[in-house]
Amino acid sequence: MSKKHNFGAGPCILPQEVFAEAAKAVTNFNGLSILEISHRSPDFVAVMEEAQNLVKKALDVPNGYSVLFLQGGASLGFLITAMNMAGKNKKAAYVDTGAWSSKAIKEAKNAGLEVDVIASSEDQNFNYIPKNINADNGYDYVHFTSNNTIFGTQFKTFPKFDIPVVCDMSSDIFSREINVADFDIIYAGAQKNLGPAGSTLYIVKDSILGQSSIDIPTYLDLKTHQSKGSMFNTPPVFPIYTAMLNLRHLMKNGGVSAIADKNEAKAKLLYNEIDSNPLFSGTTAIEDRSNMNVTFVLTVDSKQEEFDKLWNEAGIIGLKGHRSVGGYRASMYNALDTDSVQVLVDVMKSL
Amino acid sequence: MSKKHNFGAGPCILPQEVFAEAAKAVTNFNGLSILEISHRSPDFVAVMEEAQNLVKKALDVPNGYSVLFLQGGASLGFLITAMNMAGKNKKAAYVDTGAWSSKAIKEAKNAGLEVDVIASSEDQNFNYIPKNINADNGYDYVHFTSNNTIFGTQFKTFPKFDIPVVCDMSSDIFSREINVADFDIIYAGAQKNLGPAGSTLYIVKDSILGQSSIDIPTYLDLKTHQSKGSMFNTPPVFPIYTAMLNLRHLMKNGGVSAIADKNEAKAKLLYNEIDSNPLFSGTTAIEDRSNMNVTFVLTVDSKQEEFDKLWNEAGIIGLKGHRSVGGYRASMYNALDTDSVQVLVDVMKSL
Repeated sequence: MSKKHNFGAGPCILPQEVFAEAAKAVTNFNGLSILEISHRSPDFVAVMEEAQNLVKKALDVPNGYSVLFLQGGASLGFLITAMNMAGKNKKAAYVDTGAWSSKAIKEAKNAGLEVDVIASSEDQNFNYIPKNINADNGYDYVHFTSNNTIFGTQFKTFPKFDIPVVCDMSSDIFSREINVADFDIIYAGAQKNLGPAGSTLYIVKDSILGQSSIDIPTYLDLKTHQSKGSMFNTPPVFPIYTAMLNLRHLMKNGGVSAIADKNEAKAKLLYNEIDSNPLFSGTTAIEDRSNMNVTFVLTVDSKQEEFDKLWNEAGIIGLKGHRSVGGYRASMYNALDTDSVQVLVDVMKSL
Repeated sequence: MSKKHNFGAGPCILPQEVFAEAAKAVTNFNGLSILEISHRSPDFVAVMEEAQNLVKKALDVPNGYSVLFLQGGASLGFLITAMNMAGKNKKAAYVDTGAWSSKAIKEAKNAGLEVDVIASSEDQNFNYIPKNINADNGYDYVHFTSNNTIFGTQFKTFPKFDIPVVCDMSSDIFSREINVADFDIIYAGAQKNLGPAGSTLYIVKDSILGQSSIDIPTYLDLKTHQSKGSMFNTPPVFPIYTAMLNLRHLMKNGGVSAIADKNEAKAKLLYNEIDSNPLFSGTTAIEDRSNMNVTFVLTVDSKQEEFDKLWNEAGIIGLKGHRSVGGYRASMYNALDTDSVQVLVDVMKSL
């Protein structure tokens, strides 16, 4: 079977070594299957602690923050973050960069908050990142999405605010260095650069816990999970174990700074081809281009059939664009090799 | 390595064949890892549909019900079920058989409902199942827990009600035949008889969807998931895949009626030893004894060290009782072989 080049938007490629080790643990993890061990067993408690410590190490998480692995994806996180950050004004500022931000806004309203969209790129189908964003002090917090998988945009630098900041980093966490101290909650569905689908990472400033102005049901209260070391109820054992393996792999290979360099090089390789090949055109503002999700279209419609045939034959999968944008989307998460990007570029050149 | 006999309360033993096949899929599932495939891919859509259909087949689910795989465990289910079942009276009846029921009651209150505990066995540390339970028509619904993993009690027959019924079957679903038509929502954390930790099963009567008297945030509304075929957001791909494998295994081996016979025989074997061996004593009312979680104590404290040594040497794991009850707990889920129960019985005889 020839090699596949997985450009899927998520769940997506992880390192082959992680797949191999995870598979092994399904049949034998200290004499049992990882799937049949108790989450209260010393073996799994050690996994949970190592996973939490690796997150702290990878992102240089300062003291005063907790790392939690919950469930429900960012979709539940939209609600959880709003409920936990609701302050005395019950009023929040959201930046709308499309799709996920829009859903986050909806859930903040469902949590009972008044929401102001303080910046939006909806006027151009979310093909850029709003600049010069101001959130005055009337808001309990400000929320934004670091990278938009659908529209292919990414905050290349993060805006600074004087109020608490919540960020959905589902699709680019661990792809580049960040300053955790700038955030009150960072949350991320695991299924891009962290691990398989089924767990959701929260990095939470401890001082915000228990401060909400609304009554939060038990599971949705981050304090519940923080006070139990992320073991309030049975955690998703295998997804967390595999995330731990993936974090080990990341740290063994130079950590986030090394992978950021690799991601930058991969992005440059593909965007250069898009910009220099007259048959292709990027769909986003150049300065806001995502290193994770590269969206582009053919400039000559009649070439579509041939292009689709060529990349399929090259073993490329997951290149179809989201229906909101059309065209193509090359998702290039941490585990995608530069060689795979080169295969795509070669196909584009050969068209 | 000698064989382990896993009596753990959950996450817990699953069939060895399921572990083997799940492990294989982690390295190769139609040419990719099951961990890197898109949840929107035809391959995974087929897995989800097969899993849903196998649940329907195994439990003879009638038309008009939907099968959903969500996240968050029963702990989030306590809230989800209350929110979805809230009717015009915003008043619910709960049967309290301890631990999980008590938590369910707390979340129904957190959902804004008035809760009446219409029956409880708290007066005897939950060592029996309340009988002759009546729920009058002033309630929106009645909720009970079919099996209590901690106290070792189980509803051997289900009470009948004239109002909608919600049941947490986390620890005994698929262990015995049930009449789904008697319930409006059945929910269950997967990590006993269904699959590994990380997914939560809901079997929902479609006619209750969208009928709640309260505004439900998007993820917590079962209608959200039902309208999207349980693919509202990225589902926990691997836990669902493995649950599907386990359901295939169940159906290939005679389905629920066959496993119910096996579970009955295993329970008889162990309870017979507890009742005939003067060194042991069961902790629950005889008529309410769980076939899944057998709780017992030593009658002679001085024998503890020897007994613990013997069962450890025999390869038995997970036998320690929950701190609320003390003593021992032998969890005997579907995948635990009768041979393993015999090993435990032999150890008890040899004491």
